Amino acid sequence: MQTVYNAGHAQHAATHEFFRGRLVPAFEVPARADYILGAVQKAGLGEVLVPVDHGRAPLERVHAARYLRFIAGAHTEWLATGGEGDAFPAVWPVRTLRSDVEPASFAARLGLYSMDSGTPLTAGSWAAAYAGAQASLTALDLVLAGQRSVYVLTRPPGHHAGADFFGGYCFINNAAVAAQAARDAGLKRVAILDVDYHHGNGTQAIFYDRADVFYASVHGDPRTEFPFFLGHADETGAGEGAGCNANFPLPVDVANEDWFAALEQALARLTAYRPELLVVSLGVDTYGGDPISHFKLDEPEFRRMGRRLAAFGAPTLFIQEGGYATEAIGRNVVAVLGGFEG
Amino acid sequence: MQTVYNAGHAQHAATHEFFRGRLVPAFEVPARADYILGAVQKAGLGEVLVPVDHGRAPLERVHAARYLRFIAGAHTEWLATGGEGDAFPAVWPVRTLRSDVEPASFAARLGLYSMDSGTPLTAGSWAAAYAGAQASLTALDLVLAGQRSVYVLTRPPGHHAGADFFGGYCFINNAAVAAQAARDAGLKRVAILDVDYHHGNGTQAIFYDRADVFYASVHGDPRTEFPFFLGHADETGAGEGAGCNANFPLPVDVANEDWFAALEQALARLTAYRPELLVVSLGVDTYGGDPISHFKLDEPEFRRMGRRLAAFGAPTLFIQEGGYATEAIGRNVVAVLGGFEG
Ligand SMILES: [Zn+2]
Ligand SMILES: [Zn+2]
Repeated sequence: MQTVYNAGHAQHAATHEFFRGRLVPAFEVPARADYILGAVQKAGLGEVLVPVDHGRAPLERVHAARYLRFIAGAHTEWLATGGEGDAFPAVWPVRTLRSDVEPASFAARLGLYSMDSGTPLTAGSWAAAYAGAQASLTALDLVLAGQRSVYVLTRPPGHHAGADFFGGYCFINNAAVAAQAARDAGLKRVAILDVDYHHGNGTQAIFYDRADVFYASVHGDPRTEFPFFLGHADETGAGEGAGCNANFPLPVDVANEDWFAALEQALARLTAYRPELLVVSLGVDTYGGDPISHFKLDEPEFRRMGRRLAAFGAPTLFIQEGGYATEAIGRNVVAVLGGFEG
Repeated sequence: MQTVYNAGHAQHAATHEFFRGRLVPAFEVPARADYILGAVQKAGLGEVLVPVDHGRAPLERVHAARYLRFIAGAHTEWLATGGEGDAFPAVWPVRTLRSDVEPASFAARLGLYSMDSGTPLTAGSWAAAYAGAQASLTALDLVLAGQRSVYVLTRPPGHHAGADFFGGYCFINNAAVAAQAARDAGLKRVAILDVDYHHGNGTQAIFYDRADVFYASVHGDPRTEFPFFLGHADETGAGEGAGCNANFPLPVDVANEDWFAALEQALARLTAYRPELLVVSLGVDTYGGDPISHFKLDEPEFRRMGRRLAAFGAPTLFIQEGGYATEAIGRNVVAVLGGFEG
C-alpha cells in the first residue's frame, strides 16, 4: 500500500492546549506522525510519496470561503493585533447569537470559526492542514487511477472540522475534502467510515442532508466523550440525506467484541449503500493505552479491523485521524494497514 | 430614590478572567458594588433596603429550568470532578452541533450553557446572581406599589445572560426577570432601555418574538465590541415581536452629542410604545475612563441622562449592569440617579 505523507505536518506544533479547563502540554504533537512514518517504513508497507498541490478550490467545495480565508491568515492577524504565542477563542455564537455577520474583531472571528479552545491555532497550522488536504487529494488520485488502497499520513486530523469551524485538533476536514473530490471526479456514491474513538461531527454535518456521501461512525458515546454535541444514534440524515447517516455510540467500557459488533452493523449499512469508494477516517485512539480515550483495542484488534475492511471489497482511502499514545501509534496504524494488505 | 442592595454580591469574586485569549485580573470585582453603595449613601439618595426572597419560580419564567439547575450546582460539580479554582468552558455547540441533548460530561455542560470564557464561574456565583434577581423583584414590588423609581444595586450584571447560557460576566438576566414579573403582575407593556456600553444580547433574545416587552439599546457596534454576535440595527424583532426591538449601535469614537441623539431615537420608539414600566439596564461603562470600553461620557453626561429618563415619565426600575472604572463607578451611577431625582 502506498502512503502519501504530509511532510509539512510539523509546522503545526502547539506546546499547550486547554483540556478540561486547564492549560496542559499538547496531546496532538508532531511526534505522532514521525512515529507512524518510522513504522510504515520499517514494516515495508510500500512507497512513501509526497503530495501534489491541487490548490484551494477542492477545499472550498466543503469549507466556507470566508472560513478558509480566516484560518489562512489567522495567526498573522493574531500577532498583528498584539497576541502572543498560540491563539485561543474566548467568545462564541451559540443559541440566539448570529453567525451570519462576520465581526471585525479578531477575537470574535476566532470564536465564530471554532467549537472549542482545545485546538491551538499556531503559526504553521494553516500550512500543515492545507498540505494534509493536498495529501488526501493526491491519495484519492491514486485510488481513482486503480490502486486498491492508499494511506494518507498527516496531521493535524480533520474529522471534527465543520464547514466553517475548527475544533478537536482539526482545521480542514480531509475526509470530507477527499469524498467531495471523488464525487466531483464522477463517482456516484462515496462512503465514509469513521473508526476514530471520537465522533466525526464535522464530516457528518458536511454531508448530513446529502444522499451521495454516506457517513457511518463507531465511537465513544458523546454524552461523555468529545465532541459531546453530536454523534447520537438518532442522527440519521436529513432531507435528501435521510437514511444516509449512521452512528454507533458505545459506552466507554465497551468490550472489544462489542466494538466489532458495532463495526459489523456499520459495514452492513455501507454494504447496502454500495459505495464506489470507501474513505476510512482512521483514528487509533481506540487503543487501550490512549491517554485521552477509553476503548481497549490493541494490535491484534487493529490487525483484525484491517482484515475486515479489506473484505468489504471497495477501493479504500485511509486518512489518519486521532491516536495519542505516541509511541504505540505507528505500530497500531501499521497493524490496520498490514491487516488490510493481508 | 430607594435602593435595593444585593449584599450577597461579594460571594461572586473571581480573581482572573480570560480577556482576549489571556488570563488577566478580573474586571468585574466586588469593589464595584462597594464603591456604588458608598456613593449612594454619601449622596443621601434614599433608603437602602435588603431584598425579599421571591424563590426560583420568577427566574424560571425567563430562564430554562435545566440551565438554572446547572448553574446552581455547577461549581460544586466542578470541584467534585477534580476541578480547581474557577471553571472555564472549553467546548461549545455552535452551528450544526446540538443543544437539545444535555451531555453527562461536566465540561460539555459548562460549554453548552455559556457563550464565552470571560465569565468565571466561582463558588459563590449562583448565590450572588440569585440574590441579584431577588433584589430586582423586590425593587419591582416597590415600583408596582407606587414608587416613582427604585435602584437595584447588584452584581454580577445580567443583560448578557440568555435564556439558557451565561456570558459577559452575567448569569441571571435581572432586567428580563423583572420585566417578566411585571407582566405576570398584570402590566400590559414593559419597556427595557439598555444604556450599558455593551448590547444586552440576552435581554433582546429573551423577548425577541414578543410584543409585550420592548427592548431598545444604545451601545458600541458589535462588529468590534462585545458581545460581537448580536446588537445590529437590522434586528427589529420577529413574529409577534416584529417592530418591538430597536438597536442603536454606535462607533467606538462616537461624540457625546451623537450618543444622546441615539438615546433620543430609542426614547422616541419607547414613547410610541407607551410602556407602563421602564426598566433601565444601567451600565456606566460608557464612561470615558472605563478600562474595557470606548465611549466618553462623564459626570455631566450621566446627570443629563438621568434628567432625560425622568422626563420620559414612566415608573422606572434602574438595574445595575456594567461599569469597570471601579473608583468612578459610584460617582457615575449617583449622577444618573441624582439627575433623575432632579
Ligand atoms: Zn479521536
Ligand atoms: Zn457593559
